[in-house]
Amino acid sequence: MLDSINGPQDIKHFSMAQLEKLAGEIRELLIHTVASNGGHLAPNLGVVELTLALHKMFDSPKDKIVWDVGHQAYVHKILTGRRATFSTLRSVDGISGFPKRCESPHDVFGAGHSSTSISSAVGIALARDLSGEKYNVIAVIGDGSLTGGEAYEALNHAGHLGINLTVILNDNEMSIAKNVGAISEYLAKMRTAPTYSKVKRDIDFLLRSIPAIGDSVAKTVERLKGSLKYLLVPGILFEELGFTYFGPIDGHNIPSIMEVLDKTKSIKGPVIVHIVTHKGKGYQPAETNPDKFHGVGPFCVETGAVIKPNGKPPAYTQIFGNAIVKLAEHNPDIVAITAAMPDGTGLQNFATRYPKRFFDVGIAEQHAVTMAAGLATQGKHPIVAIYSTFMQRAYDQILHDVCLQNLPVTFVLDRAGIVGEDGPTHHGVFDYSFLRHIPNIIVMAPKDENELQHMLYSATEMNAPVAIRYPRGSGVGVNLQSEFTKLEIGKSEILHAGKDVVLFAVGAMVEPCRQAAELLADKEIAAGVVNSRFIKPLDGTMIRQAARDTGIIVTVEDNVVAGGFGSAVLEYINSQNLNWVKILRLGLPDKFIEHGPRSYLLHKYALDAQGIANNVETFIRQFGVRK
Amino acid sequence: MLDSINGPQDIKHFSMAQLEKLAGEIRELLIHTVASNGGHLAPNLGVVELTLALHKMFDSPKDKIVWDVGHQAYVHKILTGRRATFSTLRSVDGISGFPKRCESPHDVFGAGHSSTSISSAVGIALARDLSGEKYNVIAVIGDGSLTGGEAYEALNHAGHLGINLTVILNDNEMSIAKNVGAISEYLAKMRTAPTYSKVKRDIDFLLRSIPAIGDSVAKTVERLKGSLKYLLVPGILFEELGFTYFGPIDGHNIPSIMEVLDKTKSIKGPVIVHIVTHKGKGYQPAETNPDKFHGVGPFCVETGAVIKPNGKPPAYTQIFGNAIVKLAEHNPDIVAITAAMPDGTGLQNFATRYPKRFFDVGIAEQHAVTMAAGLATQGKHPIVAIYSTFMQRAYDQILHDVCLQNLPVTFVLDRAGIVGEDGPTHHGVFDYSFLRHIPNIIVMAPKDENELQHMLYSATEMNAPVAIRYPRGSGVGVNLQSEFTKLEIGKSEILHAGKDVVLFAVGAMVEPCRQAAELLADKEIAAGVVNSRFIKPLDGTMIRQAARDTGIIVTVEDNVVAGGFGSAVLEYINSQNLNWVKILRLGLPDKFIEHGPRSYLLHKYALDAQGIANNVETFIRQFGVRK
Repeated sequence: MLDSINGPQDIKHFSMAQLEKLAGEIRELLIHTVASNGGHLAPNLGVVELTLALHKMFDSPKDKIVWDVGHQAYVHKILTGRRATFSTLRSVDGISGFPKRCESPHDVFGAGHSSTSISSAVGIALARDLSGEKYNVIAVIGDGSLTGGEAYEALNHAGHLGINLTVILNDNEMSIAKNVGAISEYLAKMRTAPTYSKVKRDIDFLLRSIPAIGDSVAKTVERLKGSLKYLLVPGILFEELGFTYFGPIDGHNIPSIMEVLDKTKSIKGPVIVHIVTHKGKGYQPAETNPDKFHGVGPFCVETGAVIKPNGKPPAYTQIFGNAIVKLAEHNPDIVAITAAMPDGTGLQNFATRYPKRFFDVGIAEQHAVTMAAGLATQGKHPIVAIYSTFMQRAYDQILHDVCLQNLPVTFVLDRAGIVGEDGPTHHGVFDYSFLRHIPNIIVMAPKDENELQHMLYSATEMNAPVAIRYPRGSGVGVNLQSEFTKLEIGKSEILHAGKDVVLFAVGAMVEPCRQAAELLADKEIAAGVVNSRFIKPLDGTMIRQAARDTGIIVTVEDNVVAGGFGSAVLEYINSQNLNWVKILRLGLPDKFIEHGPRSYLLHKYALDAQGIANNVETFIRQFGVRK
Repeated sequence: MLDSINGPQDIKHFSMAQLEKLAGEIRELLIHTVASNGGHLAPNLGVVELTLALHKMFDSPKDKIVWDVGHQAYVHKILTGRRATFSTLRSVDGISGFPKRCESPHDVFGAGHSSTSISSAVGIALARDLSGEKYNVIAVIGDGSLTGGEAYEALNHAGHLGINLTVILNDNEMSIAKNVGAISEYLAKMRTAPTYSKVKRDIDFLLRSIPAIGDSVAKTVERLKGSLKYLLVPGILFEELGFTYFGPIDGHNIPSIMEVLDKTKSIKGPVIVHIVTHKGKGYQPAETNPDKFHGVGPFCVETGAVIKPNGKPPAYTQIFGNAIVKLAEHNPDIVAITAAMPDGTGLQNFATRYPKRFFDVGIAEQHAVTMAAGLATQGKHPIVAIYSTFMQRAYDQILHDVCLQNLPVTFVLDRAGIVGEDGPTHHGVFDYSFLRHIPNIIVMAPKDENELQHMLYSATEMNAPVAIRYPRGSGVGVNLQSEFTKLEIGKSEILHAGKDVVLFAVGAMVEPCRQAAELLADKEIAAGVVNSRFIKPLDGTMIRQAARDTGIIVTVEDNVVAGGFGSAVLEYINSQNLNWVKILRLGLPDKFIEHGPRSYLLHKYALDAQGIANNVETFIRQFGVRK
């Protein structure tokens, strides 16, 4: 059946039975594709019926369906002309794992970061009304995304505007991990105890019984009628914000969803439809472990076992997770904060070991950072672990609440640099640029697992705002030292000397630079390698020495070159009047980087050993370094 | 009486009558000080009684009082040891107009940007509980600040934690302008219609009357009891978020406030106290015009007339406000968005003229930017006018929602550079650095009023994300052209040639650079001046020509030099292998800039004509330019 689906028009005439059969086929396709390519499985399994009902009831792309975060848009992609190419999901030149405007007119608004869908939908609906057009605008947002402040800003504004707009609240009780926050408990209350409808029934009965009761009582009941009518609606929180609320609806029952979607069409003003779904629905391993199957690498369909490449060293995430537990043993001031990613950031062990010192604030990066600042004013040392790309959302709080007050908060930016298949919305390639111009902050990147441990320890001893960033995936594979060493602020490390050129590498670029130096040695170019360690403050002594010794410096970073580490080195060289030094800055170009395997992209952008070696060779040959 | 107040302990024994007399004296001091120094008057007049009650009932600094935004903390400052120095408010080396940790132990958490107080208070309260200490934590937040998403993130988390914490909702129906948003309407409903307490009375009566009514009815009522108890509370929205709600309370009645604050002390879990105050209370001109007296320059106490320096040219804000109205006449796609600052950003005329195309989203910069992106996807051209410092909060949305999708949204950053007396929380000195590394964006700064008009027009024709930034206050005073000209992207303008050195000035630095060139001419140094216009993309042709002609380039910007315009020029020079060029980068140092008059600070940091001339002369003399 699925083979006949080339656009949403192809399901319009389907019967319920056919839709349900189609749902099964879609699940098969989802499971097998993600098993082979990796991707977001559980969220998509949860929205199969919802997506079918949406495309049956609405007329995309005339009607605009906006997906929050967007990792649950696979079914939407399959139904809107991308069934045949779905096997290329997340692979080079293949379709993106997120909605992408340039990919299809059905992808109305791109996403990747959380909590933006209602804002963009409000914008679209306003444009529609200004142009006098008629179509439906639907934002699909998870209960996890609803913990993000921007979603609330948009709800507050939409309610105020009274604009025609449907918000589908896809409530699966999770963000990536188990959801947190008062709203989430509120939703649970609605799900588990249908008190509202019971109360409503009781009140109706009471009102019908008025003739049977005493006069003054009857009057009172009568007077209550209006007020109660207002109060006794489910989803009162949303009603208070100016929305008409429907729900909760079983999100795996296509007729129920269709029925409520149909109702929303005739409602004036903003509507919220509360749909209850199960992450991972229809695939047992994912239903049992929705967290693990949220975003997952290739796995075995039969067993659900993730296919692990053999012999890979442990990931930086894991090193961090173990190091913070160890540090916290000796330093009772250490507390850890995550924004809905206890597992992803490696804090699960810390959470188990020190539950009182661990805070998962939900998808609320801004609050996470300012709360950390508050903790720091009272002598705690908060370690805020957030992926590099999501830390962008707290730029103002890092600057205004932490750095301006020079508070000892440590930021741990995992998934920095190229993240791979998740693509442009998720690459953490701007952090050097958005952090290093902020006064007071210290910015570091470790060359390997041991240095990550040392940096984390040093950060907790520095009494200043510190950011540590490291890439996704495996470390270098060094033997772990059990002792943590305090690093000197702003001191780099010379890995080996070289008389022709010195490579100043940062973080994940140190290892490929070491290999590049070997490749260069084969060509009789003596390249020194410095592990820069600090993006801010820079090691001026080392830079000046390299300048004196070789006259040629190459900076290597997995960050955009605009405003990045190399830019900082240029600034230093300039401030020291050393402009006779030849400098080559290697890094990422001034464009958004596409999705693809991390190694593929590093190679494409010449940030692997060979690419670095080639660029260094070309650069220094022009100055007549002997062959 | 006020003369005897040197700390909060001095009001502890005061009677109500004495407190009320003191309130009057404090108002006198506020009015006269702000009339002379400028500052935030209306917000502080509104919280005199609240602040007195807080310091009477709580024991600061042991108890922690956190002020959101902080422009309403003057009374707090007067009561906590800064009465004698209050006359230095906002002046050089004087006390800050905002809470500042280094100024007093009573200033628990610095502020300036909105919606951070609950987050920091949660952090402080968590630290307290972890350390086993006992004290109260109070966040004072306005209803305006409550439209900011971070405040909601914090409410959601605090409700989830069930932590002991008091949030004072200072409800004055305004942010800076009249408040917007569904929450604000909800608060108004609570203020104006005390239905909740009436309903509660009725229900109580009904429950007492149970014996008088029939059996099945009685049972129903009985069953309702539990549910209704839960539902029939005022402030249900906050109760749903896990807070205990008190209010609304008359915020100018000291005994009422004290009574409710006393009650909160025995409540377990988070409490919200809804206080209704009047902005400008006690000073007629400010009561009538709270918007005008929100932040105000020196004024005449008797009449309330603002003292305007004679003959100053109109402010950039006004030029922008007129230009956008004119553009919108010819371009129906233009819509304007502000985050709670229709007046401050100059959009008031636009709002009057095109009410349907104008959107004030409240203090919600993130939503403003993503909503603009949504509008842009449907063919509108949104102009988002937000002060430079507040645009920091939407960094992620600019990058992820607008630039990644390359949508035609124009960002107008007013109050860029040094803003003056509002100080470090408000200086807009990071925007070149946080914008220019984002792919796809075009960043401009006008040299004068005409160029602002041309840039605004050009931006709406560019079909790309564009940022235009300009400073606070008056323009240069040029005659306004009635025709708007389309500027070529990335093209700078040579103002005059000079064979010894070329100054590349941006925006507000162009005029002082012109004057600096005259001062240099007196010393027989021929300095050319280029109006750079574009921070991104740079005018490479002009840079190369200046390099060829003089070999010496000076960049001048009112932004931090780290990652700023000069840094971009260094990157360009480096990428072109032009490193024989001597470059001096003038701008702001890598530290947070204190408060003080704008002209004073520009002079102090050598960004006035004389400072620029001196630095240029010193720089070029070392290369042997002839005297």
